[in-house]
Amino acid sequence: MDYRKESLRLHGEWKGKIEVISSVPVKTKEDLSLAYTPGVAEPCLAIQKDPDLSYTLTRRGNLVAVITDGTAVLGLGDIGPEAGMPVMEGKCVLFKTFGNVDAFPLCIRSKDVDEIVHTIKLLSGSFGGINLEDISAPRCFEIEKRLKEECDIPIFHDDQHGTAIVTLAAMINALKIVNKDIKDISVVVNGSGAAGIAITKLLMSMGLKKVILCDTKGAIYEGREGLNPIKEEMAKISNLDKIKGSLEEVIKGADVFIGVSVANTVTKEMVKSMAKDPLIFAMANPVPEIMPEDAKEAGAKVVGTGRSDFPNQINNVLAFPGIFRGALDVRARDINDEMKIAAAKAIASLVSDEELNPDYVIPAPFDPRVGPTVAKAVAEAARKSGVARI
Amino acid sequence: MDYRKESLRLHGEWKGKIEVISSVPVKTKEDLSLAYTPGVAEPCLAIQKDPDLSYTLTRRGNLVAVITDGTAVLGLGDIGPEAGMPVMEGKCVLFKTFGNVDAFPLCIRSKDVDEIVHTIKLLSGSFGGINLEDISAPRCFEIEKRLKEECDIPIFHDDQHGTAIVTLAAMINALKIVNKDIKDISVVVNGSGAAGIAITKLLMSMGLKKVILCDTKGAIYEGREGLNPIKEEMAKISNLDKIKGSLEEVIKGADVFIGVSVANTVTKEMVKSMAKDPLIFAMANPVPEIMPEDAKEAGAKVVGTGRSDFPNQINNVLAFPGIFRGALDVRARDINDEMKIAAAKAIASLVSDEELNPDYVIPAPFDPRVGPTVAKAVAEAARKSGVARI
Repeated sequence: MDYRKESLRLHGEWKGKIEVISSVPVKTKEDLSLAYTPGVAEPCLAIQKDPDLSYTLTRRGNLVAVITDGTAVLGLGDIGPEAGMPVMEGKCVLFKTFGNVDAFPLCIRSKDVDEIVHTIKLLSGSFGGINLEDISAPRCFEIEKRLKEECDIPIFHDDQHGTAIVTLAAMINALKIVNKDIKDISVVVNGSGAAGIAITKLLMSMGLKKVILCDTKGAIYEGREGLNPIKEEMAKISNLDKIKGSLEEVIKGADVFIGVSVANTVTKEMVKSMAKDPLIFAMANPVPEIMPEDAKEAGAKVVGTGRSDFPNQINNVLAFPGIFRGALDVRARDINDEMKIAAAKAIASLVSDEELNPDYVIPAPFDPRVGPTVAKAVAEAARKSGVARI
Repeated sequence: MDYRKESLRLHGEWKGKIEVISSVPVKTKEDLSLAYTPGVAEPCLAIQKDPDLSYTLTRRGNLVAVITDGTAVLGLGDIGPEAGMPVMEGKCVLFKTFGNVDAFPLCIRSKDVDEIVHTIKLLSGSFGGINLEDISAPRCFEIEKRLKEECDIPIFHDDQHGTAIVTLAAMINALKIVNKDIKDISVVVNGSGAAGIAITKLLMSMGLKKVILCDTKGAIYEGREGLNPIKEEMAKISNLDKIKGSLEEVIKGADVFIGVSVANTVTKEMVKSMAKDPLIFAMANPVPEIMPEDAKEAGAKVVGTGRSDFPNQINNVLAFPGIFRGALDVRARDINDEMKIAAAKAIASLVSDEELNPDYVIPAPFDPRVGPTVAKAVAEAARKSGVARI
């Protein structure tokens, strides 16, 4: 099937993939008096006295906004706010289907960081959480950082953290297969956009020490000319040996390659130059950095990609519905590293030691255990780390 | 039943009166490839080429935002953005129930006109229309005016225009009973907030010439000290004889009294001082300016109120669902006076000459003919007045 052509046809038929429905009866005068005036005055006054009651007396407690500015949609780039909306609606569908989270798509007609932050901040009383989506780097980092400081609800940029969490989940299990410890290995991450930077940070918070982040100019190291602020920040905390060189050069001897870049950037020879039993996560879409069969032939022990037609699909849908489900369940004021790591471990835990093999290091997106398991672990982590409010 | 107490209990049980659901199947890998990646890239690119396709390839074509700042909620006043949300959700329920319009509630944490306008403008690509709600006067006038200028989707402040349309509908029929023409009569409107000003303007656009708008200080006339800008504007176009005095004084000889003010501001004596067969629309909630039985005893021919337990309920739900239904159906870029008048006439038309009597000048809120009839008339008026885009 030509998915894109068929998808366009279906979108024209669907006229939207979400619907806002009424969940209360309005059939009689009495119904109207209870759901609307005069009765509704009472829940209004209750919330005025205690704004936290908005979480239980309105939909807020189960509601997440999926917000984009349309600047980094899929692999399509800056296609504009309205053009990003089919993806945002799709995301809302996944939130509801896999997490029973009500999610509503919004696009913002601005690329200005201040305007985007301010707009979301002013709307934050309407939602229980904010999922940022498809906002280009490096703006996405500042937008998320400022919103986390200025809002009292959890802010989560899925392109960063969703990808990082699922990558970590796959790596936890893949490392078991090759019997290596995250504290000892060396990792090369190619691609220093939203996903690459978040992956590097999350792996480091799990104990990874040796990690080199690359962009199109090769390894990022402290002192390299022309780095943007986020890359400068990364240069200070990663690649502590200040190794220079192209991806081809720095991948030599590495235990793990993580690609969040573009098609065909890794050759068989490069895989062969890595340490024994290398792990390859080649997540460029739709064509990975190296095709799984080539990577395997060159000696890769485990290969993961972004695609559903190969084993070990690194798919964000394993993370975000359960993460927000868990965060909303305990009314978390943040989604912190503890919660992200708990989510990754929960996803990894669903592959039993008996089942674990190089072609199955991560559960399938439709595994019904994933959402609830992630939600439970995230809620617990929120409680333990002190960000749960109930 | 104590509606307010029971409503509070029910709101706690409902945990929100709206729900955002997925309207497409996501049960298989294939479903996911069509509703989400990789298929979704194609509708995204189609919208990039032609942003108008967002109306058919996403939910936008059926979607209205119900937006408040929480400054004038019901009769409760400035109770804050979150506290206004039970009303906004209720409104969304009515939009869906009576117009099959998907409506989503948003509250804005700001009272600043510039901030509110800017926030809504930046979000306007996400919606097919904006329903402003419970924003205090006189800010509501400037906010609506500027949004109408700056946005390419219809903007409608229901507290102004919904009330005005339904009042006009009732008046069209009531005037038939007393055999008077709107061009000849004199009207006194008490209350110069959102509703009072919009009612006055809409009646004038229907041909009314003699109208006096009152506030708590009495008649508004050109040259009165201390008028705010909107009252000054009204002073220039209404009360052309520059009549001064209290409500009690200026109501003398009037054919129609319209109250959008507070309880018990009109006495039997005042009704007796009006012209023959006076019409009384006493819409203060929950206690009207004069109780219907008192008004009738004093000679009122037709009495309407905002209450469902008296005849002739002036209820906005007769207007807004059908108005947006019609506007969305033809993708109107505005909701103009022609459309508002068409809506009022459509509502009035549902009371046949045979049925028409002093206790039945306007259909009941649950009359199933109302929504579709209003929608059809509004869509036609949009076409005729050149604001329909399809």
